[in-house]
Amino acid sequence: MSDRSKFEAAWCAIKQELLDHFNGEGMPKDAAEWYERSLDYNVLGGKLNRGMSVVDTVKILKGRVLTSDEYMQAAVLGWSIEMLRAFFLVADDIMDSSVTRRGQPCWYRVPLVEHIAINDSFMLEGAIYYLLKKYFRAESYCVGLLELFHETTYQTEIGQLIDQLTALEDKVDLTTFSSNRHSLIVIYKTAYYSFYLPVALSMHMCRVPVTYAIDSAKVQPYESAKSILIPLGEYFQIQDDFLDFSGTPEQIGKVGTDISDNKCSWCINTALELASPEQRTVLDENYGRKDTTAEGRVKAVFEEVGLRQRYRVYEELVRMIEAIPETQQEGSLKREVFQSFLKKVYKREK
Amino acid sequence: MSDRSKFEAAWCAIKQELLDHFNGEGMPKDAAEWYERSLDYNVLGGKLNRGMSVVDTVKILKGRVLTSDEYMQAAVLGWSIEMLRAFFLVADDIMDSSVTRRGQPCWYRVPLVEHIAINDSFMLEGAIYYLLKKYFRAESYCVGLLELFHETTYQTEIGQLIDQLTALEDKVDLTTFSSNRHSLIVIYKTAYYSFYLPVALSMHMCRVPVTYAIDSAKVQPYESAKSILIPLGEYFQIQDDFLDFSGTPEQIGKVGTDISDNKCSWCINTALELASPEQRTVLDENYGRKDTTAEGRVKAVFEEVGLRQRYRVYEELVRMIEAIPETQQEGSLKREVFQSFLKKVYKREK
Repeated sequence: MSDRSKFEAAWCAIKQELLDHFNGEGMPKDAAEWYERSLDYNVLGGKLNRGMSVVDTVKILKGRVLTSDEYMQAAVLGWSIEMLRAFFLVADDIMDSSVTRRGQPCWYRVPLVEHIAINDSFMLEGAIYYLLKKYFRAESYCVGLLELFHETTYQTEIGQLIDQLTALEDKVDLTTFSSNRHSLIVIYKTAYYSFYLPVALSMHMCRVPVTYAIDSAKVQPYESAKSILIPLGEYFQIQDDFLDFSGTPEQIGKVGTDISDNKCSWCINTALELASPEQRTVLDENYGRKDTTAEGRVKAVFEEVGLRQRYRVYEELVRMIEAIPETQQEGSLKREVFQSFLKKVYKREK
Repeated sequence: MSDRSKFEAAWCAIKQELLDHFNGEGMPKDAAEWYERSLDYNVLGGKLNRGMSVVDTVKILKGRVLTSDEYMQAAVLGWSIEMLRAFFLVADDIMDSSVTRRGQPCWYRVPLVEHIAINDSFMLEGAIYYLLKKYFRAESYCVGLLELFHETTYQTEIGQLIDQLTALEDKVDLTTFSSNRHSLIVIYKTAYYSFYLPVALSMHMCRVPVTYAIDSAKVQPYESAKSILIPLGEYFQIQDDFLDFSGTPEQIGKVGTDISDNKCSWCINTALELASPEQRTVLDENYGRKDTTAEGRVKAVFEEVGLRQRYRVYEELVRMIEAIPETQQEGSLKREVFQSFLKKVYKREK
């Protein structure tokens, strides 16, 4: 059985537990059917990178094959991240009036669902804590897991607020963009829940303590992990933005549209910082227009200011990972966790 | 200073802590202003019954005046319930396409807010766990508080799902109603968070244990509290429904419209259980029509089946409260908690 099939089999068990609890409370059949449909429609169908990385990370940290109980606990944490993501995506699609998600209509666009999708998104989040209590109540690190989910959820919501306010009115106005704002959005809206959360949950499950010593030097493993994974999350987004501008359709599987779509991407924010007054005028006059000539002028400025040379984050990340102090003792952090993450993220297929 | 003013002063401090944290994370000024506006607009303006009842209950259980630290902790729990309520109401208003709430436009109808209201509602929930961590992290009962908020939130969401599915299509069809379904909606959507949650939080804060003994009989105080407060919540809703049918405009401050609005209320569900086939036909043909003659026919059936005689829950509640075993020992449950609740709920002004 492939890693993915095994992870998906765990979903069947987890979903059944949620439905058993729901039915056990005496809820009517039509509601149970609705709930099951919402769970499958919204949690499945993605790449499952975030969820499966919990299982991978726990394996690396333990340095051995997992028992079936350990596998199930890791899978519950992984699926909880996928449910958190589903909670955000169902709501984001309504807020952005999106049409499709993962090749099917957005949940709120399914007949009869409409605004009930808002409550369905709430239930996707609510179910996480039912599962955490069921699987981790007896563990000493249970509060650590709860706090991580709470903090990450709030951070993501804060990121979504800033993002929504950046394009508050539908007009092109580059003065509302800035690299600082772009970076806040990327870190809060994506990096915390997609990069830090899976690793930090795995560390808790492997009982990595808040501090330990290597050769009498104090190590703060969660802070170390954060200091690498948040830049990794930024790099992931910068790469995405950069390839939208520079990638060929063969590389990225689509034609980039960030420039004509007025997107607040890494490219425009970096170009705004580097542009001369003349180049700035070109950007102001041509960004966000559905017109290939205008788009060409923006791309020319991107080349003139040297965007390609600025795109060097990858090497820096490799250096940071190599700098992590390492020991063989149990419950300590390992470079391999981050190397495995970087490999997954780097030049990923679209 | 009145109890209400004191409680409202605590809100100023709590809101400032949320904004200090938000600003401390380096968030832009426009976002901080937006967040503050959302907090005030959505959390304030209600009757604050739920929130203030935490302070009252803690006072009763401790049997003395609270220290200023104790007051602040009780107020944080109280305001957390008000924030949870705001989270639900902002979203409910979108789902129900409501126009006004507490005498002002619903938040999603405020210019520029629109769908961002969904994320604003998420943040109202997210902020609760920031506050709980800040004020209760060091307390032995902290996990108990977190679990209560998790469970109650999920229960309320389940109740909202059943409620939404009951009126899925806009047509009058009394076969979708039933007393059992009505009771599930009332208990899950309202009673848990409005009645059980404030008391159970207060009990945790006063370190009431899960079990204790009175004269060698085992008492389960949280189960006792639930077995009274959930029926009390049902009674509150039944009273509301009954007065909509039977109350004079002077009593209830409005003219009842549940019958013409096709509401799934206690009255129609009870009448459906008691009606003869002929009476049932009258109900089917006249319920949910905007027509005073039709409404009159429905009311006549309500009288014929003896709805007034069925409305006797109050006496039962008084008897249940009197049956609670009581002792003077610290950290035990007191009848006065429920008597004070019942007094607030009974024949409340509209």
